[in-house]
Amino acid sequence: MNHTQDLSHIIGELMPFADTDKQTQRQQRRAKTCASLEEAVRRSGLRDGMTISFHHAFRGGDLTLNLVMDQLAAMGFKNLTLASSSLSACHAPLIGHIRNGVVSQVYTSGLRGPLAEEISRGLMANPVQIHSHGGRAHLVKSGELNIDVAFLGVPACDDMGNANGYTGNATCGSLGYAMVDAQHADQVILLTEDILPYPHHPASIRQDQVDLVVQVECVGDAEKIGADATRMTSNPRELQIAQNAAQVIEASGYFREGFSLQTGTGGAALAVTRFLGEKMRRKNIRADFALGGITATIVGLHEEGYIRRLLDVQGFDSVAARSLARNPNHIEISANEYANFSSKGASVNKLDVVVLSALEIDTGFNVNVLTGSDGVLRGASGGHCDTAVGSALSIIVAPLVRGRIPTVVDKVLTRITPGSSVDVLVTDHGVAVNPARPELAKRLQAAGLKTVTVEWLCDRARQLTDEPQPIAFTDKPIAIVRYRDGSVIDVVYQVRD
Amino acid sequence: MNHTQDLSHIIGELMPFADTDKQTQRQQRRAKTCASLEEAVRRSGLRDGMTISFHHAFRGGDLTLNLVMDQLAAMGFKNLTLASSSLSACHAPLIGHIRNGVVSQVYTSGLRGPLAEEISRGLMANPVQIHSHGGRAHLVKSGELNIDVAFLGVPACDDMGNANGYTGNATCGSLGYAMVDAQHADQVILLTEDILPYPHHPASIRQDQVDLVVQVECVGDAEKIGADATRMTSNPRELQIAQNAAQVIEASGYFREGFSLQTGTGGAALAVTRFLGEKMRRKNIRADFALGGITATIVGLHEEGYIRRLLDVQGFDSVAARSLARNPNHIEISANEYANFSSKGASVNKLDVVVLSALEIDTGFNVNVLTGSDGVLRGASGGHCDTAVGSALSIIVAPLVRGRIPTVVDKVLTRITPGSSVDVLVTDHGVAVNPARPELAKRLQAAGLKTVTVEWLCDRARQLTDEPQPIAFTDKPIAIVRYRDGSVIDVVYQVRD
Repeated sequence: MNHTQDLSHIIGELMPFADTDKQTQRQQRRAKTCASLEEAVRRSGLRDGMTISFHHAFRGGDLTLNLVMDQLAAMGFKNLTLASSSLSACHAPLIGHIRNGVVSQVYTSGLRGPLAEEISRGLMANPVQIHSHGGRAHLVKSGELNIDVAFLGVPACDDMGNANGYTGNATCGSLGYAMVDAQHADQVILLTEDILPYPHHPASIRQDQVDLVVQVECVGDAEKIGADATRMTSNPRELQIAQNAAQVIEASGYFREGFSLQTGTGGAALAVTRFLGEKMRRKNIRADFALGGITATIVGLHEEGYIRRLLDVQGFDSVAARSLARNPNHIEISANEYANFSSKGASVNKLDVVVLSALEIDTGFNVNVLTGSDGVLRGASGGHCDTAVGSALSIIVAPLVRGRIPTVVDKVLTRITPGSSVDVLVTDHGVAVNPARPELAKRLQAAGLKTVTVEWLCDRARQLTDEPQPIAFTDKPIAIVRYRDGSVIDVVYQVRD
Repeated sequence: MNHTQDLSHIIGELMPFADTDKQTQRQQRRAKTCASLEEAVRRSGLRDGMTISFHHAFRGGDLTLNLVMDQLAAMGFKNLTLASSSLSACHAPLIGHIRNGVVSQVYTSGLRGPLAEEISRGLMANPVQIHSHGGRAHLVKSGELNIDVAFLGVPACDDMGNANGYTGNATCGSLGYAMVDAQHADQVILLTEDILPYPHHPASIRQDQVDLVVQVECVGDAEKIGADATRMTSNPRELQIAQNAAQVIEASGYFREGFSLQTGTGGAALAVTRFLGEKMRRKNIRADFALGGITATIVGLHEEGYIRRLLDVQGFDSVAARSLARNPNHIEISANEYANFSSKGASVNKLDVVVLSALEIDTGFNVNVLTGSDGVLRGASGGHCDTAVGSALSIIVAPLVRGRIPTVVDKVLTRITPGSSVDVLVTDHGVAVNPARPELAKRLQAAGLKTVTVEWLCDRARQLTDEPQPIAFTDKPIAIVRYRDGSVIDVVYQVRD
């Protein structure tokens, strides 16, 4: 009726309609595509002191973070908080950006290589915040980690920003970490190697999550994803530990039709799948799902029909990336769906069995996966504490000693996962069950498996190694270790040179 | 290092870690599944005065809303705001709940049948808020429509809430409207006919969006989706109008390789696809995508290869639902991705051609799709104003007169879509181009199509009909019509009996 002119008593504070010509509106709409990374940064509204984010699906092959940081440094930005879902050895150039004040605060799951060394030696004024993969989603959703601009590298997308991680050249597979940033960041910039016709599909990151799109030469080297911590081992001791762990799973009561499993990074942990797969074939037991970082071995079992569905937050090799593109029951999930304790539904809580590594584990079953025996950062929190507490059965696999250094100790240098979350420790010298799980110990013993106490393993490790040199620390904290709920579970100090 | 006890100077206001036994944590986790709808309502924390929501993917076959409202009434709730993405004739039982004070405010895209009649005659103290499909996503995201508890009917889901609209018996197809509620509601309750093994996949609504799951006998009657406004016409006049519209599209300059299209509800609008399909086959022109409500005709063209991708916010028939399950390039999108002007990317802005219906259109090209010639509510805003302004070419198809009532008038009773968004009017008596698009008129004329002025059509309609009876209204507003940006574009008043 177009009575709206004098309807303030009816419509209250509602805005009256103001007509704008359709052609004018169409002309005002600005394309998301930018001619350069510099233009994208400018249009994002990034300012000094803001928080920027990255994902680590390319692991050691990531090229996006260094590219962006060099650009931001060249543009003169200062005092940024850098929140990458993780950092690795390839991010050594960050050392310069931290020295020059471009970055003043870091949130990450892990730190390795030269950057980790420098931070351990006091590079930063503010300690790094170390979070788990689930914990990062919690920090983002709770508002502590308020991402102003997310820089997300993808192999390809369309001009509206529809993207997945398996179409194109730089195929990283699942974009599970990036999905959290895409959903929550104020501004989302996609860096892409290729711009494809609209609408690009499937879209893990969707057009209504993306502000800007910029084409760059390279976002990542997919060949370097499946290296180091995600490579299949041929080390006989690791294989022996893996075989022991597979026996523990078989005897645990959780190895039954429709069970679920996750294997973390690290040679022995990954190798468990291989031995467990043999048991699944022999006993004709099928898993309902495998979770987490997905590997070629897991994909093989899926394609053989022994694992019905793969819930994939991160691909650990190129086989996983290709499988995600090909297999309809290989399902991409976000870090929030994977492991965030404050999400409405985290898959870790549906997990029967997880197999995890350790740099150190102590007689309280607390696990360190962050600092080396020299006190220097050389690891990642990852999904360790998320899956350990979420699963029905968490198994730590580790050699009793590494070189002349004990793995089983009285007290871990840095606590990432509390001992209350760990059910079994499997070493090359014996299996120890957490005394909190007496029924589990009984099941293993009933199956003929010999168990020892964790104290016995600790003593044995001490016998096999030299008296450890005490590590000299200053009183300067260089990393705060956040548990998955955001609480502080430990602090790492600067090593004294 | 477990120095956390005395680290308040380092960790500041961060919470220190407090250990909880894993088994205790596992026991404390409460399953999402509820034994009854009543239990689900109680656990949701619903209180008087809150806002509840529903989706309308089942259209006239919806059974969820009445089921829930009866339960809420029985539990004694009062003063609720009901925000269904739309309402139709099947929701007549709401009349009682409004009378009894269970519902005191309504947001919806449309109103039909007895409920619409009663509201038009003054049933509610507060006027209904009418929004478009994109406008609803805007109201939800902007905070005006803060959904406390969403009650979302799905054919099947798992116990964590992973759900789609095409697995099971009550297959509605796309859950595009429900996806917005699932993302934004404080509490999300899935009503499901079946609970499937975890993890159910594909998941349009995902586990980290769902709080509670309750199994009920029936959520919707899929057979009733493809009825009324979404049925294929056999009316010769509608077919003639559709054929004229297809000719207009062909001559418009937008009918070219890689174009995109949407056809709204209503016989003539839906029939345009059929005639356009013939032209696509003859000229071997392929569309990049079809958007919106998806129909069997659109699916047919997709499966023939003439439409590369379908962007589906809502299935208009059972063929569309089955296609979504089967065809990898039939893509489910949310209402936010479909049409929200304040989303980061709405597909309507990529649309070349949209064909829309009208109850009335005036000489300013303003369109009424809400109120009938008697002033009573009998329609829906839908995606009308969203697609009209977003598309390059918006075509209104309508018979010049309906019975003895003119469709083309001096001034529409209720304005849903402003004339500035409408490019062409196609009737059975001639085609009128909006004078704001002179280049378009020239293209049609160059192709040999005869055009007339909208004033000529209005005169012609007047000649063919009786002098219209003026409608008597009271001064009580019964509906506020919100434009897609939330502004008030019109007000509907109570009809005087």
